[in-house]
Amino acid sequence: MTQFSPQDYQMMSRAIKLAYRGRFTTTPNPNVGCVITKEGEVVGEGYHFKAGEPHAEVHALAMAGSLAQGATAYVTLEPCSHYGRTPPCAKGLIDAGIKKVVCAMSDPNPQVAGQGFELLRQAGIEVSVGLLEDEARKLNRGFLKKMETKMPFVQLKMAASLDGQTALANGQSQWITGPEARRDVQLFRAQASAILSTSQTVIEDDASLNVRWSELPNSVTSVLSEPQLRQPKRAILDTHSRLTPLLKLYQAGGEIIHISPSQGEINAPICEGKVDLNWTLKTLADEHQVNHVWVEAGATLASSMIKQQLVDELIIYLAPKLMGADGRGLIGALGLTSMQDVIDLEIDDIRLVGQDIRIIARPVYK
Amino acid sequence: MTQFSPQDYQMMSRAIKLAYRGRFTTTPNPNVGCVITKEGEVVGEGYHFKAGEPHAEVHALAMAGSLAQGATAYVTLEPCSHYGRTPPCAKGLIDAGIKKVVCAMSDPNPQVAGQGFELLRQAGIEVSVGLLEDEARKLNRGFLKKMETKMPFVQLKMAASLDGQTALANGQSQWITGPEARRDVQLFRAQASAILSTSQTVIEDDASLNVRWSELPNSVTSVLSEPQLRQPKRAILDTHSRLTPLLKLYQAGGEIIHISPSQGEINAPICEGKVDLNWTLKTLADEHQVNHVWVEAGATLASSMIKQQLVDELIIYLAPKLMGADGRGLIGALGLTSMQDVIDLEIDDIRLVGQDIRIIARPVYK
Repeated sequence: MTQFSPQDYQMMSRAIKLAYRGRFTTTPNPNVGCVITKEGEVVGEGYHFKAGEPHAEVHALAMAGSLAQGATAYVTLEPCSHYGRTPPCAKGLIDAGIKKVVCAMSDPNPQVAGQGFELLRQAGIEVSVGLLEDEARKLNRGFLKKMETKMPFVQLKMAASLDGQTALANGQSQWITGPEARRDVQLFRAQASAILSTSQTVIEDDASLNVRWSELPNSVTSVLSEPQLRQPKRAILDTHSRLTPLLKLYQAGGEIIHISPSQGEINAPICEGKVDLNWTLKTLADEHQVNHVWVEAGATLASSMIKQQLVDELIIYLAPKLMGADGRGLIGALGLTSMQDVIDLEIDDIRLVGQDIRIIARPVYK
Repeated sequence: MTQFSPQDYQMMSRAIKLAYRGRFTTTPNPNVGCVITKEGEVVGEGYHFKAGEPHAEVHALAMAGSLAQGATAYVTLEPCSHYGRTPPCAKGLIDAGIKKVVCAMSDPNPQVAGQGFELLRQAGIEVSVGLLEDEARKLNRGFLKKMETKMPFVQLKMAASLDGQTALANGQSQWITGPEARRDVQLFRAQASAILSTSQTVIEDDASLNVRWSELPNSVTSVLSEPQLRQPKRAILDTHSRLTPLLKLYQAGGEIIHISPSQGEINAPICEGKVDLNWTLKTLADEHQVNHVWVEAGATLASSMIKQQLVDELIIYLAPKLMGADGRGLIGALGLTSMQDVIDLEIDDIRLVGQDIRIIARPVYK
């Protein structure tokens, strides 16, 4: 086991922080940060901003210039070894005279997968791997899951009153959650490769399901200008072909992936009267470069996705209200008959967002 | 406005902390703490432990002895001025030669209500009132509400899965919440004057609804021995006279208040086929010295109490589970038809208790 110094931890933390700056724009590429140090001083740093643009290492090396000679590079992900839209970063580090490379983790991308390290080691560079790996993995949950399982990472958003109701019996549901929670949703949407919803939700709410730059927090808009904003793809399940071009959805900019049995960008097989969700997610990953899906729809899709064990993370907003059991439930029927079959969750985070309670949890599938 | 010094704040905080030690035992009396200082040093302190036993001031004066001469007394509540089961504390402070009294608040008890301060002032003692009043009020929410409105302070306990279900469609509900949450409930029960439930709940769960000393946290059992434990009264609503002496309820020690239309300790009027809850609570306060009620029952009672605006505080445990909308809801139907009519809550506390989320909130009635 490699021993890392306090300085190593400090520099890798800095690289991870830098990598996060790309979280609204890099998809389908991973978020990567790089810090170059010489004699304990930072001489270069950078992060990957957008697919097709330079990788983190390139920015950091450009900043370091000739100081990169004999320096140490901290990178949150294994440097690439293949010629893609940009030349391999491993080669860049070698050519710049870097002496030592510290990486948080190897790249599961089969085009890299250890070959980056191999190239570096062959050039006589000292390589160590595994520093703050858990933290670095969190940077790229979508990218990693897709590489490792061919399925996208799926977050399911839900919102209800404290007694688990999403609407009154008559369907009224406006403003269950407050403005802060709605802004928080914008932040999640902005980080997803795609937003998955249903024609039902789109038509009922005449929802655009896009990201509105003006509703993002100042901490984001101060570093991401409006033209830099990437709109996530909007993947809409439309079993009965009910979408029409007059909907707001089509007025807002950004790509729409229409999923229907026969007339969509994705012609999905039907399973028990409904679009096959597992197949659809795989196809989004495979053919549409979607590695991180944000699901925002109603109780029916929510319970189907949970029952089929397709959800990685739940983001639940509970408004400080009681609506009564005659309302509409947070998720649909699960048809459970034994307490042993209930779906257990691991809570990762609870906090107040404005007046609402936000819970982040992971389903523990049996 | 009286100016208080940092030392004043420190001593009153200490008195409030002491007062909390009585929270399992003083009902129907208030929790009171007292600290006596001389030349900046604590020379005496005490708290009220149990109705009929000495008040906080008596303990503190006994400890101070002759050092009370010329000293300052910090008391969380106005010293009493009447002869009850113990002689008036105001007289005790005067007789001991106390020079200055600092109080958090006046006593709304009509037998005291400013007369304690009056006695002290007449004896030439400097009196100042209002230091940490909000904190001192929290000590005695039941006592104060009863004094001010003739109604008890009501806490409603609820437990559900994260999607607001309390049981599966077939009624299965065991172990929704974990052992830490169940121990937490014991702590709330132990602080209430009475536990209010229904024959339905008692029979379904064969519940004793008592406090089990061994299930209280160590922080409590280390200062409260098993013989010192007070069992709250158990007030059971039994509209159709279904309770039988064979139930566990009757095996466990402690007083039972049977509430039924004609055969109970409380013969309650019936309103729309159900026991009149408002009348029942008032009677519990009036005739049974109950100033703090902990309600633990099912969705029907919960929604009735909320609809009738009888609940002061909700204690909601949400287990990290999903049970599906075909289960049983957290509260019953409220019959709301407009989002403007939903019951708004103010969240006071959110935390994890074991694996469960505990939310403390106050309904904001319109």
